[in-house]
Amino acid sequence: MHLNNCRQLDQQDELAEFKTEFLIPDNFIYLDGNSLGPLMRCVNERISHTVSKEWGQDLITSWNDNDWINLPVTTGEKIARLIGAAPGQVICSDSVSINLFKILASALALRPDRNIILSTSDNFPTDLYMAQGLASLDGNRSKLVISEPAELLDSLSDAVTVLMLTEVNFRTGERWNIKTVNEAAHEAGALVIWDLSHSVGALPVDLDGCEADFAIGCGYKYLNGGPGAPAFLYVAERHQHVSQPLAGWMGHAQPFAFNPVYEPMPGIRRFLSGTPGIIGMSALDAAMQVWNKTTPQAVQQKSISLANVVRERVKDESVFSVLEPIGPGPGPAGGSQVSLRHESAYEIVQALIERGVIGDFRNPDIIRFGLCPLFLSHEDVYQAMDHLAEVLDSREYDDPRFKTRSFVT
Amino acid sequence: MHLNNCRQLDQQDELAEFKTEFLIPDNFIYLDGNSLGPLMRCVNERISHTVSKEWGQDLITSWNDNDWINLPVTTGEKIARLIGAAPGQVICSDSVSINLFKILASALALRPDRNIILSTSDNFPTDLYMAQGLASLDGNRSKLVISEPAELLDSLSDAVTVLMLTEVNFRTGERWNIKTVNEAAHEAGALVIWDLSHSVGALPVDLDGCEADFAIGCGYKYLNGGPGAPAFLYVAERHQHVSQPLAGWMGHAQPFAFNPVYEPMPGIRRFLSGTPGIIGMSALDAAMQVWNKTTPQAVQQKSISLANVVRERVKDESVFSVLEPIGPGPGPAGGSQVSLRHESAYEIVQALIERGVIGDFRNPDIIRFGLCPLFLSHEDVYQAMDHLAEVLDSREYDDPRFKTRSFVT
Repeated sequence: MHLNNCRQLDQQDELAEFKTEFLIPDNFIYLDGNSLGPLMRCVNERISHTVSKEWGQDLITSWNDNDWINLPVTTGEKIARLIGAAPGQVICSDSVSINLFKILASALALRPDRNIILSTSDNFPTDLYMAQGLASLDGNRSKLVISEPAELLDSLSDAVTVLMLTEVNFRTGERWNIKTVNEAAHEAGALVIWDLSHSVGALPVDLDGCEADFAIGCGYKYLNGGPGAPAFLYVAERHQHVSQPLAGWMGHAQPFAFNPVYEPMPGIRRFLSGTPGIIGMSALDAAMQVWNKTTPQAVQQKSISLANVVRERVKDESVFSVLEPIGPGPGPAGGSQVSLRHESAYEIVQALIERGVIGDFRNPDIIRFGLCPLFLSHEDVYQAMDHLAEVLDSREYDDPRFKTRSFVT
Repeated sequence: MHLNNCRQLDQQDELAEFKTEFLIPDNFIYLDGNSLGPLMRCVNERISHTVSKEWGQDLITSWNDNDWINLPVTTGEKIARLIGAAPGQVICSDSVSINLFKILASALALRPDRNIILSTSDNFPTDLYMAQGLASLDGNRSKLVISEPAELLDSLSDAVTVLMLTEVNFRTGERWNIKTVNEAAHEAGALVIWDLSHSVGALPVDLDGCEADFAIGCGYKYLNGGPGAPAFLYVAERHQHVSQPLAGWMGHAQPFAFNPVYEPMPGIRRFLSGTPGIIGMSALDAAMQVWNKTTPQAVQQKSISLANVVRERVKDESVFSVLEPIGPGPGPAGGSQVSLRHESAYEIVQALIERGVIGDFRNPDIIRFGLCPLFLSHEDVYQAMDHLAEVLDSREYDDPRFKTRSFVT
């Protein structure tokens, strides 16, 4: 793999046009869009409009006149199209953690004779924490059982209420087959919650086609909705009769009647809680525009092609022999990232950041590069690998200044 | 009360200077800052900075380098100073509803031998809904009991876990005496949660001085944090050993260690859940700047003075005789609003809105004017009353176009 190959691939790249819509600093190669997606021009403009015009000029009337009241649904519907969800099943709201709590409690309500929440040891920890929090609250009505991934399906039993899984592993990029897992779970009478935080916007998901029950996901990674953007949740229509416990006024059948008794709104809106953050949600709503011009399928194809640049160079060049590639890489079995193991992963990531190559360290020894096809070129990835080669070759990562760990690693 | 009196009062008004910091349209008299506070210049600038520079240019490094990770605490501390809370007891996070849920569950955990959540029929409904949601989840470990306000303290018993009250009633502006209620509750072995949504930024609150247990409140009303701004919560230091059930990664002792077992961070941070919405929280953080230059005491004094304009005109002018003032008005017994009852309240509010006088209708028959001293002059209030006089006199509110009810009323 040579730079010229990359340039050729970029010339043929149908997604290349989108790069100019992102405001990424010139001196950055940004391999961290799977942690915080970058700012798009249209998002910047939309935030300005929401703040200066809708809030500043129209003030409270915006709830009606600028349709703020429906924003959780309108943004949700745009996300729905990326995850194979028919209308009326997705809303944008709160954080992934809070949405998961709503869904976990809903799943337990749908299976009153069962009590186990089954998850895996490699799940994203906040998901495990929320299940632990729920169990602390419901008098151990529910119980979190953590399985090794390989033993997951063997752990199904008639006590399992719900499987709680993240489709794409945040460390390795390994990917579950949603359809296979759903079938096995349903066979055992269990429900499934899919955390799509590392999937949505990076690869095709077909929730309805896989007879999914529930899903949640993140707005600030591949969806580029901004730091701490609101999250989303999906509830299959057949499960929407359930009431969730975070029963705020925005999910009430008549929020402005101010009745003292909670009566959930029919449909997906009952999964709303308090007043949504309009500025953040407007940003995410605007970021969804790009999906009018491309598809998760096209994005996934380019992820595979970008990952090839890494894979081939790691295979062919001796400087990279100290790295151990882990996970399958993008494709049917993997998400849109490459993960490389090295005992000095933390310091190597810091040395790369100093060079403007922004990747992630993940405990204990993983260098993680997020491959975001909407704004990365093959040449970007090639150059990032050049930097990595220089960092490894010079051992500049041994410098003591790269060893100081900040709170956010 | 004449226009000249108002102009004289405005000339002596020490808060008059702040009006220019708010970007309110010229054709509005905005009496709805208690529903959605208006945009301040410094907030507009801060949002631009957070979006263009911190997100756009610094990207993921902002969590450390722009201190996003501490924003819930830094913003919380600014709010703490308005509500009489010593450092380390307030964080900014999520919505009022979600924060209430955390606190309700915490209170129940602190009083394992009690089960009643005691509230009042006139409480803000979303607070009641959240308590209902909690009871639906914990197998009726908890039970919401709703009392008439006048009978509240007589309803205390050794089964009461916690009183859940809103200091200022959203319809009438009536105000509880926090100290008196806390004393009675503590005497009975119960805890108290104060919803300060209609208090904070409008009047002095002294939580520590009243030996408060818990409080929650809203960022988008008198704090001017923007539509759906994040909320806040207060937990007295002596109660911070409790674990709350919405146990997201931001409350973990080591969020970036990605351990599978939840271990709450010491102190107030354990009341965080998922990733905070940074853009919205930056807006609220910026809006707190104004409190470097004034105090809740000064604001309350001006509220009283603004309310006098309404009160005297209603008393003295026959056109207003069809209105019934309700509630005490601003002062020791009331929040920063005036409420006027009329059977055509909805239509009158609509007719006023068409004239640019933005107030609120509250079910079933209340015209509510929020008096926000940071941006309202006595002349503004006088002119609003002129419009109200014209609407009443001409009966223009009888026009059918004012009868159509929108979703958000």
